[in-house]
Amino acid sequence: MPGEFDLIAQYFTRPARRAILGVGDDAALIALRPGFETVVSTDMLVEGTHFLPGTDAARLGHKTLAVNLSDLAAMGAQPLYATLALSLPRVDDGWLADFSRGFFALADAHGVDLIGGDTTRGALNLCVTVIGEVPAGTAIRRSGARAGDDIWVSGSLGDAALGLAHLQGKLTLPDAAAMQAIERLEAPLPRVALGLALRGLASAMLDLSDGLAGDVAHLARASGLAARIDVEALPVSPQLAAVLQVLALDQRVRFMAGGGDDYELCFTAPLANRDAVRAAGASTGVPVTKIGRMTAPESAPGAVLIVDEDGNRCAPTVSGFDHFEKCA
Amino acid sequence: MPGEFDLIAQYFTRPARRAILGVGDDAALIALRPGFETVVSTDMLVEGTHFLPGTDAARLGHKTLAVNLSDLAAMGAQPLYATLALSLPRVDDGWLADFSRGFFALADAHGVDLIGGDTTRGALNLCVTVIGEVPAGTAIRRSGARAGDDIWVSGSLGDAALGLAHLQGKLTLPDAAAMQAIERLEAPLPRVALGLALRGLASAMLDLSDGLAGDVAHLARASGLAARIDVEALPVSPQLAAVLQVLALDQRVRFMAGGGDDYELCFTAPLANRDAVRAAGASTGVPVTKIGRMTAPESAPGAVLIVDEDGNRCAPTVSGFDHFEKCA
Repeated sequence: MPGEFDLIAQYFTRPARRAILGVGDDAALIALRPGFETVVSTDMLVEGTHFLPGTDAARLGHKTLAVNLSDLAAMGAQPLYATLALSLPRVDDGWLADFSRGFFALADAHGVDLIGGDTTRGALNLCVTVIGEVPAGTAIRRSGARAGDDIWVSGSLGDAALGLAHLQGKLTLPDAAAMQAIERLEAPLPRVALGLALRGLASAMLDLSDGLAGDVAHLARASGLAARIDVEALPVSPQLAAVLQVLALDQRVRFMAGGGDDYELCFTAPLANRDAVRAAGASTGVPVTKIGRMTAPESAPGAVLIVDEDGNRCAPTVSGFDHFEKCA
Repeated sequence: MPGEFDLIAQYFTRPARRAILGVGDDAALIALRPGFETVVSTDMLVEGTHFLPGTDAARLGHKTLAVNLSDLAAMGAQPLYATLALSLPRVDDGWLADFSRGFFALADAHGVDLIGGDTTRGALNLCVTVIGEVPAGTAIRRSGARAGDDIWVSGSLGDAALGLAHLQGKLTLPDAAAMQAIERLEAPLPRVALGLALRGLASAMLDLSDGLAGDVAHLARASGLAARIDVEALPVSPQLAAVLQVLALDQRVRFMAGGGDDYELCFTAPLANRDAVRAAGASTGVPVTKIGRMTAPESAPGAVLIVDEDGNRCAPTVSGFDHFEKCA
């Protein structure tokens, strides 16, 4: 008789739509198109490190795939396939039903085939690998920014960090704001359509997982540049604007530029592309906001300056949330 | 400043040889060939479930990749790329240096590029996804066996199970036998070259990870057949022959047909291919042994009969080690 962990696999075995051979053999078979490049990314989510114990299983299924789709979106790639390996401390049918429902709802929304997997016993750990494609030569790397390019960001910043702080009891949000913030934390929407629309427009791009300041530093370093960000330009979600206005500037910046789990796209583009970038946002239903500019580096590349409305600098930083420097 | 887990990634970041874009962006870019199908597999290894705490780090690095390469070998595929996600309870430079050395030694031996990864804090967990290719239409699936086909197995069976039993104190092997058995357990050699050589010869194939009897049952079920295995034909490694001869038949069968972690190839082939199969083994330096025959199923497909030299049946089984039925 197959063990209980073999039986779990049945939650994740569905007929392949696009794959030649899906789940159930030693490996899956897929056909990728000539003239395209294949795009591959992998992310591992660990309970207690990436999500709080007790997180809703359907949302966790969604997020496990979403953070990987966000990586493909950040290359301007079309997602096609995913594999899922998971270790679980015990077999819980209700949890598995909810988790797989959340996972497949997002997979279906993006036409992604689950083509392989592995289930085993262990501390709760979720590892997804996604495979997609871009027309050859059109992937948007981190390294393509030029001095003078605008810096843009999709959606709004800080929602997930506020949601985490609320769940951790570090602050208390009003009910409606808490719901919005926690949903952004637990069920981020990967910006796949926007990523595709930015091919040929954005010069460099990445997705924001560790906080704007640190992630822009990665992009700046890869491009051999520095970055200057206007703190007043950072986009706030309507539901959280009132909450953020109450906070002191340094706290506000801490959530919006230092908080993780935004899963928004951050990208650079030449000034000549401003109208086209705004049109890409409009056509995909995702707000895009110009938040700063790439600059020649004064010393080593990678410095990120955040300035307030009076032009006062915040300390350069390349860190994520925990090491974020307060504004001067 | 990047966190310590960002720094770990440097152990696994090397210039891409084959990939267009390797580790360091949101995703990797690779170009796959027209006329080929892409083969994808993923496996997760968890401390305490798949390997004993304290396992040598270099061997663990080797095995983490080896079990995935074994899956590609079982499709007759050429491995090309791998991603590695790992969670670690703490940063241990010596362990990381050893682990990455073992991983890359095997990757280099097979020309595999590590193109992406993720490192994070958590219980020790290693998740690899491998990507390879086969000429379109030549992958060797589990489902292609026909009644009357020979059943073959590469190498020898039961070494790893004996090694595990020795490490767990369930039996005590002589020193030389123990070394051989533990090496087979901790550093299995994926049969990649043999898998490639069997394209066009084998009708169905899988790799043995959960024990011969249960794995042959998977192949039989996928092919709509049953299988009959001659227990006296099961290949024994020279170093362990003396040990196995001491055991009672039911114990011997338990190790050789019910023990996991063999990572040998098990395949079926028409009788007309016997000489060619032996030549494939000889040309790749891997012994191949004919151990039985596929048969029409008497009732539901998937039954595996194991018979001794007098033709006495052992109980049909579809299980791995723990549920293995004793010979009647």
